[in-house]
Amino acid sequence: MTGTARVPGFRFAGVSCGIKESGKKDLAVLFSEKPAAAAAMFTTNRIKSPSVLCGMARMKRRRLQAVVVNSGNANACTGAGGLEDAEAMCAEAGARLGVSKELVLPSSTGIIGIRLPMAKIKAGIDAAVANLARDGLRDAAEAIMTTDKVPKIASGQCRIGRRTITVAAIAKGAGMIAPNMATMLCYVLTDAAISPAVLRPILRRGAEQSFHAITVDGDRSTNDTLLCMANGVAENPPILRGTSAEKTFERMLAGLMKELALKLLEDAEGATKLVEVRVERARTVNEAQRVAFAVANSALVKTAFFGQDPNIGRILVALGGAGVPVEPDAIEVAFDGVKVVRRGVAVGTREEEAAAVMRQRSFCVRISLGMGRAGISVWTCDLGHEYVRINSAYRT
Amino acid sequence: MTGTARVPGFRFAGVSCGIKESGKKDLAVLFSEKPAAAAAMFTTNRIKSPSVLCGMARMKRRRLQAVVVNSGNANACTGAGGLEDAEAMCAEAGARLGVSKELVLPSSTGIIGIRLPMAKIKAGIDAAVANLARDGLRDAAEAIMTTDKVPKIASGQCRIGRRTITVAAIAKGAGMIAPNMATMLCYVLTDAAISPAVLRPILRRGAEQSFHAITVDGDRSTNDTLLCMANGVAENPPILRGTSAEKTFERMLAGLMKELALKLLEDAEGATKLVEVRVERARTVNEAQRVAFAVANSALVKTAFFGQDPNIGRILVALGGAGVPVEPDAIEVAFDGVKVVRRGVAVGTREEEAAAVMRQRSFCVRISLGMGRAGISVWTCDLGHEYVRINSAYRT
Repeated sequence: MTGTARVPGFRFAGVSCGIKESGKKDLAVLFSEKPAAAAAMFTTNRIKSPSVLCGMARMKRRRLQAVVVNSGNANACTGAGGLEDAEAMCAEAGARLGVSKELVLPSSTGIIGIRLPMAKIKAGIDAAVANLARDGLRDAAEAIMTTDKVPKIASGQCRIGRRTITVAAIAKGAGMIAPNMATMLCYVLTDAAISPAVLRPILRRGAEQSFHAITVDGDRSTNDTLLCMANGVAENPPILRGTSAEKTFERMLAGLMKELALKLLEDAEGATKLVEVRVERARTVNEAQRVAFAVANSALVKTAFFGQDPNIGRILVALGGAGVPVEPDAIEVAFDGVKVVRRGVAVGTREEEAAAVMRQRSFCVRISLGMGRAGISVWTCDLGHEYVRINSAYRT
Repeated sequence: MTGTARVPGFRFAGVSCGIKESGKKDLAVLFSEKPAAAAAMFTTNRIKSPSVLCGMARMKRRRLQAVVVNSGNANACTGAGGLEDAEAMCAEAGARLGVSKELVLPSSTGIIGIRLPMAKIKAGIDAAVANLARDGLRDAAEAIMTTDKVPKIASGQCRIGRRTITVAAIAKGAGMIAPNMATMLCYVLTDAAISPAVLRPILRRGAEQSFHAITVDGDRSTNDTLLCMANGVAENPPILRGTSAEKTFERMLAGLMKELALKLLEDAEGATKLVEVRVERARTVNEAQRVAFAVANSALVKTAFFGQDPNIGRILVALGGAGVPVEPDAIEVAFDGVKVVRRGVAVGTREEEAAAVMRQRSFCVRISLGMGRAGISVWTCDLGHEYVRINSAYRT
């Protein structure tokens, strides 16, 4: 991917408005000079932040012109007052940007259960709008961070017809990451001309291979949002379903989302390892997925990853407990190329080689169920002291 | 419960045979002088130790006279050879005890994937049989320990007819504990006269309220076994279904099992807190259970317990992600008596009181779903540095 953090027709800002006691940036505005086609996915948690409820209502029209995001406070479990606050954020941003608040989507991320400090947020929105810049995407990426250690940006270009299409995306989320989105925010911005109806399934398929295939701790947040805005400034012939243009565009979009998803995992709270859990020869994709996530979410497996211990027992325990009718005698497990379980029986002699694989920063646990033809990969990280330190002291 | 560690008609031993490098006790024999009625439950994990497969075969006859258990090696993922080893353990014990090997049930617990050291085990069985004693239950309880810090024993007596009935039980398991049994072994021994058909449902109901209601890390092992032997030496009139004698006996049995289950949790790997998660006003017991375990198994909730942080956001995130259609605006959450969420909205003012509750060694998180009449409790522990330390270094 050739990288650029500018997207024609978009301007960005990230400022500090005082929500975070540290004084770090905590408010971002993403603005498209023209109304953009929009597609979005939100958390599947039954308990949704009022900001998400407001955003879901906005998406009914499938057009947006701006996003306003604060970090440091999730505006969750704040009831009717929280919904008013989310609307007020949109109204303030809309007024300053000269667009209807119905074209502004709000997001919040951070601690739960405390009302947003609206005076600070309004002042922050004013400052952000005054600072909007074509090269402001990195500031915005910083302003949406919570426990993230680094901002996450990915971008690329492709040709559609005779036009160059640019896509850039930012994301945040370093914990509470699990399938079906987690404390995860991701905004994908492009100048492509594409209708919301064509854009939406592309975004959904991209999520399956990226944000829905990673897990840090199995919890899904109240605030997750994945949004794509396409403003058409590139003036390409509109991307239509089933065309090679759609394939080209989808390949780039999915690639950037996968890149960001792995960046989230690499930056996961306290993680020292990035591990692919690949399940093959399952009867169905659904069964492969259940087995993969049972392994990828097991605290015992993840602490063994941290300890660089090829503890096949824990992997087998997790997969055997996944609720999938596996055939114990058909199971094979390998760490990268080192087979440690053959036909359900531990291969005792290869432990040292397997341990060497695990000493790498990244490796693959390959599980064959020997039952069918379906396969899938998910990505996880280890569970170490740093995870406990961060998560037991997060609010203090 | 008045405690005694002797059960008429039973003898016990626990010895060191060299499986554990530490030289600690690692082999136990439990012996009934008469063939006993037996009931058992085994792990629901699809991957079962050959020892469990052997034990399940034994239980078809519902009569047992001895149990032989080794710790330090789980005899799991050892294939056909592992099954031969389990049979050989029974044969050795049977020969020394003068009973058919079909009346001996084997158990193994410890690391996975390595064949049992059969020479050591046979020598251990011989030594244990030579050391059988009426007051040997504590030695046996020590010999089944893995990462447990203390042996777990519970005992009691009750009157049935004119006879005094004694029940004693031992258990082990300090990690990988989750609903439906975990690396958990429990042997309940009684001199009551009761048929296997009456005993079995009593044991099953007792498990629901005890071992199936606790969780440490959500994983179930390959080796879990809950066994009750009733040898009839008390010569009470046989306990029949639907009688007051059954109630009396069940109350004692269930009480001892609950006592042991909480002892397991108190000794859980690295735990500093014992937390009851009580879910009330659910539509069904199943929904209450799913919500309770979603909260009790959440790594983010458990690290917040460790940090003594009344982080209601994590509790709500976990319960909202349980897959149960909860009504966000109906949810109430309290730490002991301190209500922190009312009608889905955080009660901001009581945080200091809630933190004080969490500084206790044990407390209750009470969740009302406001939807129905079903309720249930499960028990969990916190997730702290000690858990990571133990589980990342377990085998090294």
